Order: sequence, then C-alpha cells, then structure tokens
Amino acid sequence: MLVVAALGGNALLERGQPLTAQNQRANVRKAAKALARIVRAGHRLVITHGNGPQVGLLSLQGAAYRPDEAFPLDVLGAETGGMIGYMIEQELENALDHEHAVATMLTQVVVADTDLAFQNPTKFIGPVYTRDEAESRARAAGWSIAQDGDKWRRVVPSPAPLEIPDTRVLKLLLDQGVIVICTGGGGIPVLRRPDGSLVGVEAVIDKDAASALLAKDLGADALLLLTDVDAVYRDFGTKDQARIASLTPDEALALDLPAGSMGPKMVAAAGFAASGGVAGIGRLDQATDILEGRAGTRLIANAPGKDASGHD
Amino acid sequence: MLVVAALGGNALLERGQPLTAQNQRANVRKAAKALARIVRAGHRLVITHGNGPQVGLLSLQGAAYRPDEAFPLDVLGAETGGMIGYMIEQELENALDHEHAVATMLTQVVVADTDLAFQNPTKFIGPVYTRDEAESRARAAGWSIAQDGDKWRRVVPSPAPLEIPDTRVLKLLLDQGVIVICTGGGGIPVLRRPDGSLVGVEAVIDKDAASALLAKDLGADALLLLTDVDAVYRDFGTKDQARIASLTPDEALALDLPAGSMGPKMVAAAGFAASGGVAGIGRLDQATDILEGRAGTRLIANAPGKDASGHD
Repeated sequence: MLVVAALGGNALLERGQPLTAQNQRANVRKAAKALARIVRAGHRLVITHGNGPQVGLLSLQGAAYRPDEAFPLDVLGAETGGMIGYMIEQELENALDHEHAVATMLTQVVVADTDLAFQNPTKFIGPVYTRDEAESRARAAGWSIAQDGDKWRRVVPSPAPLEIPDTRVLKLLLDQGVIVICTGGGGIPVLRRPDGSLVGVEAVIDKDAASALLAKDLGADALLLLTDVDAVYRDFGTKDQARIASLTPDEALALDLPAGSMGPKMVAAAGFAASGGVAGIGRLDQATDILEGRAGTRLIANAPGKDASGHD
Repeated sequence: MLVVAALGGNALLERGQPLTAQNQRANVRKAAKALARIVRAGHRLVITHGNGPQVGLLSLQGAAYRPDEAFPLDVLGAETGGMIGYMIEQELENALDHEHAVATMLTQVVVADTDLAFQNPTKFIGPVYTRDEAESRARAAGWSIAQDGDKWRRVVPSPAPLEIPDTRVLKLLLDQGVIVICTGGGGIPVLRRPDGSLVGVEAVIDKDAASALLAKDLGADALLLLTDVDAVYRDFGTKDQARIASLTPDEALALDLPAGSMGPKMVAAAGFAASGGVAGIGRLDQATDILEGRAGTRLIANAPGKDASGHD
C-alpha cells in the first residue's frame, strides 16, 4: 500500500514540554521507530507533519531579536519544514539502518486569497499565555488571539489547501521507492496570481487538510492522521464510552464531536475516505495496527461488513 | 550540459545590506532571472547556495529569545535550507513561467569528527561587529571570533565534505528533467558513527567545497561558483591587472591569490576541473557567459589551445 502518514504536533512534542532541540529530537526518534515499522511491513510511505509550536517559536525568536524585521509566515513555515524534515529524515534513516532512501522536499501549497479564513484566523501557533499576557502581546505585535483550553494563544489564518504543484515530482520519487517527507506544516502557503505565478501568503495551512489533499492527488491507499489520542470514541467520558473501530465518511461527519482538533481531523479523513481510500486516526505508536484494523478509528467508504471485498 | 550552480552569500545579499526577508527576496528574484537563462539555454541545472549570513541571524534570533536553549548549527542549517530554498524555488518557477519542475531537497553532508577544522574554526557566520562588541559576545555565548576585514565576526568549524548520501535520489530527479535545489548552506553537517548511523554536528560546511563534491558525484559537466566578483585577476589592483579567462587546475593552485573567499573557491574549482569537468568562477548575472567562455574565469584540465577538442 501507499501510505500517507501525518504526524501531529503532539506526536512530535508532548503537551506542555518546552520546545528545545533536545525534546524535539527525542520525540522524533520515537516517531521514527513507529514510521520504520510501516516501511518494514512492506508499505510505501509519505510523511507529513505539523508545525504549530515550531512556527510560533521561530516567530517569537525573530521578534525578540528585531521586532520590526519579522519574517512572514510563509518563510517561517519553510524554515520549520527544513528543521523538522531534517530531524525526521535523519532519525528514520537511522531507524531503517540506511537500507531505504529517504528524501525531504519543500512543498508549496496553493490557497485562495478569497478564503474566509483570512478574515477569521483560527489556527493556534506558538506557546500558551495567560489572558493578560496574550492581550498585551497582541497589542504590541498586531496578533489575533483566541482561547485554547484555559489559556490563550496567537491565532493565524488557516485557509483550505487547493492545489499541490509538486505532486508530479513527489510521484517520481515514490515510483522509485524513495520514502518522502513533504508538505511540512501543511505546506508553505502560497497564492496563485492571475498570471500563474506563485507568491507566499501569511497563513498556516492545517496539516490534516493538506495531507488529505496530498493523499488523494497521489492516489494513496491509506491516510493516517497520527496524534496522541488512541481513537475516536462514542459517548467519550461517560460510562458508555466505546472506541469506534470503523465507520463510513457520512457516519463520521454526522458524529457530534467535542470542539478542538478532532473535528478538522474527521473532516479531512472523511474527505479522503469518500474518494476511495482508507483513512485512519489514532496514536503514532499504533500506526501499523491502525492500518490493519486492530487499533484507532478507520473511515472506509464501504465499511467492512457492508462490503466483504474490503481494502488491503 | 548538467550544470551545478553555487550561489554565494553575496549573490543573495549585497554586502552591507540588512538581512530582512524583503532584501533576501529582492536578491533571490534577480538571481532567479540569471538561473532561468541557464535553463532556457538548454542545460539541466542543480542549484546550491551559501547560508553564512542567514545561519548567523537564526542563531542570534534564538539567543535573543532563550539564550540557554540555543539550537545546534545542524538544525539551524536545516532551517536556512528551508528558507532560502523556498525563496529560490518560488522565484525560479515564476521566472520560468512554471514550464519546468523545480524541487528543493534537504541534503545531509558527512564530515569527519577528526577534521582539524573542529579545533580551528574559520568559517564566518552572522553580522560584523567592532572588536569590543565581538569579544563581549564571544565571552557571553562561548563563540570563537576572528577578524574579517576591519571588523570582527563569529567563526565556526568548517570541516571538509566527504560524502553526500542523497546523491542517488538527486540523480533520480535530474534524470526526470527536474531542476533541483539542494546542499543549501553547504549541506547539513553530519557525522557517520561506527554503526553507520548519522548524527548532526556543530559546523557549517563551505558551500563551494560541498558543491564541488556534489558536481563530481553527479558527473556534472560544469560547476559554476557564482559571486559578486566578475573573474579571477592576475596582478589585481595594479596597472597590469588582467582577467584570467582560462587556466588549468595546476595553474590555478599555483596562483598567489589574496586571502579571503577566493582561495577556497579556487581549490574547490580546481578539484572539480581535475576530475574532468569545467569549473567557472564569476558573477551570477553572467552565468551563461561564463559557461560559454565569454566572461569569468574557467578552469579546464586540458585548457583550450592545448587541446582543440575542448568541452562544451
């Protein structure tokens, strides 16, 4: 199978951990072991990853040095793609004993300047603050801010990904057996101007949405949205809670999920499953189990039991 | 011809210009126009670039935010590869009206931990300071510093590049007609441990040396080391000064060049020319003229006039 595995920010940095190079490296090493198992199980693999904490950190570093020379979010996104991509590539190559070629490619992703997200920023980046501190920083730096749990954070526009111009090049590499790391941080956000040229834009694309588009364009068999939550639950937090092992895209979209990151994940997964592949949501260290239906939640257009032919 | 074009820091940022995103973008746009002419002349193209000013800036940004959580130079190098690679890719795609695929790949480059450069740091990174300011920063952050003209700068180890593990993947892309941007900042410096695994190391590899190794490993026909100096001169600064249009590697190494960046450039160029290709040194905006012998300085193992068969 061709598998697109999307690593959530929480798969690369445990909640509450300081974003040091050492902490990132230790988490990436764990992630690489799980990703190596997918490759050793015989699958072809594309890896994408989030960058919310990292792009926020780079923005704060730049502001601490020269507040009036802040780099735009497309450039910061490209920096995080380099940083995180490098760490994943090196640790995965090591985990695979250098028996497989791994390539990290920067990936521009086209969005529309008419996307309503530019008027309504919702994507959290950077660290959490108290309300007072967040408001003070927002005034100083022109941020938008929003509540995240009991804390406050900076929010930036998260427009929908429309097109990944590098898809053809990515296919060339996959066809030659290369494991590809790409679309880091949801890809580098760009607009296509009327003359066809590309230009960066201040945004951070949702990595699950970009990964679903990528998986569809590549004709992938499976999309794995990997996080620190082990599955989607029915009646979560009640005595009746039950892991949902499998459901159709329509059933997924009809679920009443708690707000936060699971909603967008479910929309991305449902979109991919509706196009014919299997979408899985669950824990990074259970990636191969999710692929085989033994863990996590899988979205399949013809759910097992309804269509005995199945996917595998 | 397969051409490896190495862009010097001064081709991406004019001497003395502040390192803002806008200045970098404007210079990269000019560079892209020159690179597009190489492609339009019918050549296959690999682009490498320096990162001295940029890796220094990221280091200062990090120190300004959290001095005790500085990211190591391999990680910062990967960040600059993302930032600069993205800008070059986008501007080159635009300059070529999106008629050619361009891919930016992160590139690890193996060095030896026994390299004497680790005891004797010589590579300038970051901005220039007065001697007093440089000494004060060196004490605070544990830097090594050295004189650069009439100013002082931080210096870091610049070990010799030994091996580029991604060469096979780069060849796959080139064979399919993709223009490749890689080995940014001389590549991400890594050591190979006895068990074969790779690990990052605190260094910045000279991009001319890394580009020469890459060009040789790829079997390139030409290596262009592009900067803001139009050629190598005999008797430079005297009334007898004369551009050296062509010379052999042995003649090049016998030249008495002024200290600074032209010495390492000449060593890198001579090494590549000795392996059978043409190495050119000159101005970025004259890249196609250098390839055709109308500008710059070319190093050729059998210099024209001695061997009428020539290279082209």
